[in-house]
Parts: sequence; structure tokens; C-alpha cells
Amino acid sequence: MKNILILKGNIIFTKTSDRFEICKNSYIVSVNGKVEGIYKVLPEKYMDCTVEDYGDRLIIPGFVDLHLHAAQFLQCGMGMTNQLLDWLNDYTFDLERQFQDVEFAKEVYTQFADKLIANGTTRACIFASSSTKGTEVLFDILKQKGIGAYVGKVNMDRNAPDFIIETTEESIKGTKYLIEKYNNEKLVKPIITPRFAPTSTDELLEELGKLAKVYNVPVQSHLSENTDEINWVQQLFPDSRKYLDVYDKHSLFGQTPTVMAHGIYLDNSEIDKVKRNKVTLVHCPDSNINVRSGIMPLRKYLNMGIQVGLGSDIAGGHKIALNEAIVRAIQLSKLLSMNQPEYEPLSVSEAFYLGTKGGGQFFGKIGSFEEGYCFDALVIEDDRLISDRYTLKDRLERFLYIGDDRNICARYVEGNKL
Amino acid sequence: MKNILILKGNIIFTKTSDRFEICKNSYIVSVNGKVEGIYKVLPEKYMDCTVEDYGDRLIIPGFVDLHLHAAQFLQCGMGMTNQLLDWLNDYTFDLERQFQDVEFAKEVYTQFADKLIANGTTRACIFASSSTKGTEVLFDILKQKGIGAYVGKVNMDRNAPDFIIETTEESIKGTKYLIEKYNNEKLVKPIITPRFAPTSTDELLEELGKLAKVYNVPVQSHLSENTDEINWVQQLFPDSRKYLDVYDKHSLFGQTPTVMAHGIYLDNSEIDKVKRNKVTLVHCPDSNINVRSGIMPLRKYLNMGIQVGLGSDIAGGHKIALNEAIVRAIQLSKLLSMNQPEYEPLSVSEAFYLGTKGGGQFFGKIGSFEEGYCFDALVIEDDRLISDRYTLKDRLERFLYIGDDRNICARYVEGNKL
Repeated sequence: MKNILILKGNIIFTKTSDRFEICKNSYIVSVNGKVEGIYKVLPEKYMDCTVEDYGDRLIIPGFVDLHLHAAQFLQCGMGMTNQLLDWLNDYTFDLERQFQDVEFAKEVYTQFADKLIANGTTRACIFASSSTKGTEVLFDILKQKGIGAYVGKVNMDRNAPDFIIETTEESIKGTKYLIEKYNNEKLVKPIITPRFAPTSTDELLEELGKLAKVYNVPVQSHLSENTDEINWVQQLFPDSRKYLDVYDKHSLFGQTPTVMAHGIYLDNSEIDKVKRNKVTLVHCPDSNINVRSGIMPLRKYLNMGIQVGLGSDIAGGHKIALNEAIVRAIQLSKLLSMNQPEYEPLSVSEAFYLGTKGGGQFFGKIGSFEEGYCFDALVIEDDRLISDRYTLKDRLERFLYIGDDRNICARYVEGNKL
Repeated sequence: MKNILILKGNIIFTKTSDRFEICKNSYIVSVNGKVEGIYKVLPEKYMDCTVEDYGDRLIIPGFVDLHLHAAQFLQCGMGMTNQLLDWLNDYTFDLERQFQDVEFAKEVYTQFADKLIANGTTRACIFASSSTKGTEVLFDILKQKGIGAYVGKVNMDRNAPDFIIETTEESIKGTKYLIEKYNNEKLVKPIITPRFAPTSTDELLEELGKLAKVYNVPVQSHLSENTDEINWVQQLFPDSRKYLDVYDKHSLFGQTPTVMAHGIYLDNSEIDKVKRNKVTLVHCPDSNINVRSGIMPLRKYLNMGIQVGLGSDIAGGHKIALNEAIVRAIQLSKLLSMNQPEYEPLSVSEAFYLGTKGGGQFFGKIGSFEEGYCFDALVIEDDRLISDRYTLKDRLERFLYIGDDRNICARYVEGNKL
């Protein structure tokens, strides 16, 4: 028996990044959670179906946040004066430690999940903490909420405070436990998550690479975010020519679907490898500015055909709402273009694409309303004063720039209303 | 009979920009709308007074927005792909024209005022439109709402569409009418507002300068925002050595209190003049990025002792909430520091100072909780999960970075609760 969902409204999405597909006053039909088609006039076969008529509202794909730290949620907007490595030591590790307390984890992860969903994210790649129990709590909360996510217990076995690292064996054991428990889930699945090279021994990375292959689990980590970090990696891993080789030699760089945050400082040979290994990079504009890492040369990567998504990267980034990352990406590209006239700023459709289909490809057919794509969607409400006098494209731009969770009146993931 | 208002809570303000004054669990006493003192223990003489006990909440000065366009409010977040002069022609003039319709003005200016106040602005320097009737509506709405503001009918007599400019005579007449009507008001007062040099004839500027002097009215305009604009001014005013001389020769540059938006491209002789004439510059970070004007060299101006405030500059800037401008100013300064290591990023207290006392000095004793300062204040609420585990400074930083109107549970202007 088919599960048919039909929405009516002003439908906007990006099939390609250069333009918006705009279907005014149209119907979008989802069958068993997948887009079946968009129609100006509803086909005969659907005439007896219920239609959720959203009137003049906008219907857009849900946002895809390819990089964020659930365990840092409480810290959003604080300690923003520090650079990366100090910030980790002064604020972040101490907060993440607290997720060993299951009650704390329940309370905070619930708030986190509610906030993430309220702000329009429908798919996310999430770092939890090094605590297996705490991460299990996050899996269960996200499952219950109905959002789609990859959730990673963070593996760390050195170069961080004792209270937050584990032995290599404990770290692997906890990861394996979560994979076995959740790998057959439909919406909320495990992802192998070494924090980053400096906090991982070779042995840890080797074992994680094996788990990735044996269980066919995706991988996420950080890459080349900050120059101090890169130098540190070179000292710790003298056998690896480049930072990404540390991951690659242990089968953690594209051997299974892999997403890497930042990738700000990559030379051409590294970019080649990212491309060849089909690794997805995540642009996290707020975080890059706030912890003064640098600016990802996004346009260059896009021109070279790298797969890129967007990340809020809370709490290096302060805003959990992905439309803020979309805007900051545009703003950053404008700033770059002011110094380098040949650097073309991101258009609104390009930035929107990054935050929907560009990131969505990591999950599969997600982030667009083309036939066969998962029906993940948001319904956007704006003021009559606005809707009466501006075009649909303007209204979408406005929502991205100044909208918040109060403008999102409905959220769908694979055809289910959250 | 004295009007005594006493609040209790966690009081934070910036007397100087280098640090926060933090008075934990203290009383702040306002007498007849002015701060009388802050006390850990309430003095005997106040023992019988009602205390508004805000518990663990933060009490901070209200925000001062030194530059925004009320008539562009609906346009926030739209048309952000254009540079300044195109954006004016394609979007802005057409919207501003509509304020000639008094009913439209009432509806939109009411929404604008509510949004401005909700987001914590307690004093603002506002551009209305060229319509006298429309601007009158704005004066009356702001008076009724209880906020403090300088409101300017925008003077334009050339180089813009016919539907929005006036004859020199009409423009002066309307300005004079509003000055005579509102100049003796306490909270919402007129400010002379030539849009900028290109849309003003010498005659218009001359007459406006006279009005400023005769009625002792402050002045606001735009200055050196964009290189095309500066070139245009040079063509239009070949007798003026520099852009600011156009204003200065007509007594619109410090002869009465003057605030100028942007001032991005000023050489040392111009900066000297700004300083000598005691002109206040307004840093509008979002607007500068969005319309790709450039970045004000803020640290340089601060080091040279220029008076600087912050502006949302809606709708070149997209966010009406001034805490967003505070954050963007910090972010911009961090980006500058990444390219120029000697450029010191703004601290949180510096940015907060700009958005309170730094801008407040234009209005008088405003933006601080020192004795004798107007009691303009906001009461900030955050989550128990946050307040239980973070310092007051962290909590304030968090509100600036991720707070919105929902976190502001009370607003006061000169001792009156809005």
C-alpha cells in the first residue's frame, strides 16, 4: 500500500547550482517518501488523495548540515576569542566530558535535537563525544525525533586530557558496539569519527579503517583546518607526506564514503587526491572566521569539481541554523572577491545548492525535488506584506538572510511530517 | 516627586571598551530616568521601594543603532547580489517611494518599530524617506512606542528617479515643517538628512546647513562608502577637494552634532578632519559586505581617536538586531587580522562598547550604567542549562552571538518600561 503525500505551494529547489527551479502554485507528490513528481495540475490518479494545501507558502528541500558537534551545543557563542587548539583545551574538552553522564546527555541532546530540527535541518553529520553511552543517547533521541543523521562516537586515544580520551581498545570497542547496534537503521546511522589526526594513534586509525571496511560505514573527520594543526600533524606522523595521507593510509579517506571538515590548506596534489578519492569537503564559514582558521578557497574547489557541502560546525560556528551558514558563505565569498577581482562571489542559488543538494549527495538522493529524491522538505511562511509584493526568488533569499525557526511551519523527512 | 525604579539582577556594561564592568546579583537604581547608582546592598533610603527582581538574568544597556533606513525595512535580505548604486536603483528607490502613501507608511513603520524595539534597540538614528507625510507617520509611531530616536526626512533633489526626488524648495519646506513640529520633543527628534552628496544640489546642502544652525539640529548622511560613489562625487562637485568637504562647506560636518555612515575610504587628511570636527562615524559591517563596498579600517580609526558607533544599516545590512552587527564587526576584524597580523581583532567588550556607549555618546549620556546616564536597559534571559554552568561574561557573549528577541524579556528607555 503506497504512502502518498501531496503538498501544494510555491516549490523551489536547485537541481543545478546555477539557478533555482521555481514551480509556482504547484503540487509536489511524494510516494513512499520519495518525490514522484511536481505538477501544475494534479494528475487524475491523485484526485482522491488528501492535499496539504500550504497556500502561498514556499516549499523547499530540508537543509543538510554536513558538520557539527552535538556535544558542543551548549557552548555556542562562547569562548570565541580563542584559536582552535586553545579553544579545544579551554572550553570544549571539558564540556564534552560531561556527556559521560547519561542524564546530562539526555537533557542536552534533547535540546540540541529540538533546536536543530526547529531550524530546518533534516539531515546531519554529527560528532557526539568520546563517551559510548552518551553517544547511544544521541542516537536514540534522533531516531525518536525522525530526522536523518550520521552519528559518530568521537575516537581519541592521545594528545588530549585523560578525562576525555580512551585507550585504543576501549575506543574501538565502543565504536564497534554502536555500529552493530545501529548500522541497519534507516535514518540514523553510525559514522566512524576519529576526532582528527593529532588525537589518534596509528593503531587507532588502522582499527577504525578496518571497521569502516568490514561494516561498510562512512567516515568523517577534520582536515587541514589550521596551520598550527597541520604542523603538529607533520610532527606526529613523519611518515605521511601530507595530512590527508594519515587518513588515507588507514582506509579512512574515500575507501568508504568520507566527509572531511574544512580542508582550508590543501595544495594541488592534495586537492587531486580529495577529488580522486571522492571525498566530500565541508565548508564551515562561521567557524573558520570565529576561531580564525582561514577561509576555504571555495570557488577554486568548486571549479576543480570537488564535492562540497556546508556545515554549521557548532560550536566553532555559533549558529545552528544552516541558512546562516548559507549567508555567511555568500558573505565570505564577497569579501574574497573584493580583494581578488577574479574570485566570483557565490550566487544565492549556488549557496543554497551547497546547503541542500550539494551536501545531500553524501546521504544519497537528498536535497532536491527531482524524481526519486527523498522527500525532505520545509514549508516557509513569510509576512503578507512581503509575499504580496516580492517574487518567489526574493522571498526565498529573504528567508535565508533573515528567517529563523519561526518562519518554518512544517518539516518533512522522507515523507514523514516531523 | 522622584520617579524611582530599582532592578535587581546581574548587571554588565562597558565604561571603557577594554573591559566589562560586572556587578553580580546587584541593584541598579534609576531616579527620574537616570542611573543613580549600582549597589550590592540596597541603601536604607530605598528600602521601601519596589524592586523589579530579575533573579539570575543579565541587565545590560540598550543597543544604540546609529544608522538604519526604516523605509527599507521590507527589503531586508533581498537583492543582495548588487553593488550599492545598482541596488539603490533596482530595489530601494521603488520601495521608498511607497511611503508617500500614509496608510502604507503606518502599516510598515509600525512593523518596523516593533521589530526594532523587540530586538533590543533603545536609541536609533533613522533615515525615513523623502516623503514628509510618511516621515511624520514614523515620528508619531516611535513617540508612541517610547523608544529614543533621531528621525530624518531624506533630502534628495537630483540624480535619482523623479518619483522620489523633490524640488529643492519642497525638500527644505518639508524638513523645516518636521523640525518645527518635533524639535522640542524629548525622545524622538529630527535630524537633518541629505541622502548623500550625489543626490543633493549645492543649494539644497546650503539650505540644510542653515536649518541645522538656526534650529540646532544634528546632521546625518553617508560618506565615502564605495569607490564608484566617491568618483561620482568628485565629478559632481569639482570644487570640493574631498567628499567630506562637500558637506563641510555647507555646515553639515560637525557644525552641529554629525553622524556619517561608513567612511570606509578616507585618507589621513580626511580622518584628521573627521576627528577635528568631532564627527561620529558608523561602522556597518553587514552592509559593507553585502553590497561589497569594502571594509572600514576600524582599528585604525579607533587608534586615531575617532568616535565610532555601530549600525545595522538595514537594508544594505540584513539584520535589524544590533547584536548581529556587534558579532559581524568582531568577525570582520578577525578576517582582517588573518591577512594583517598587526591588525588586532575587536574584543567582545570593544564591540559591545561600540554598540552601546560608543554610539550612545551621539545622543548624550547613553549606553552605560555610570551615574547620570539615562537608564536605557535590556533584561536578558537564558537557559538554566547555560546560567548554571557559565560565567556572566560567557553568558553575555552567548547572547550577543546567538540570542534573539526571545531572549530579551524587558526593555527600558529613560527609566520607562517599553
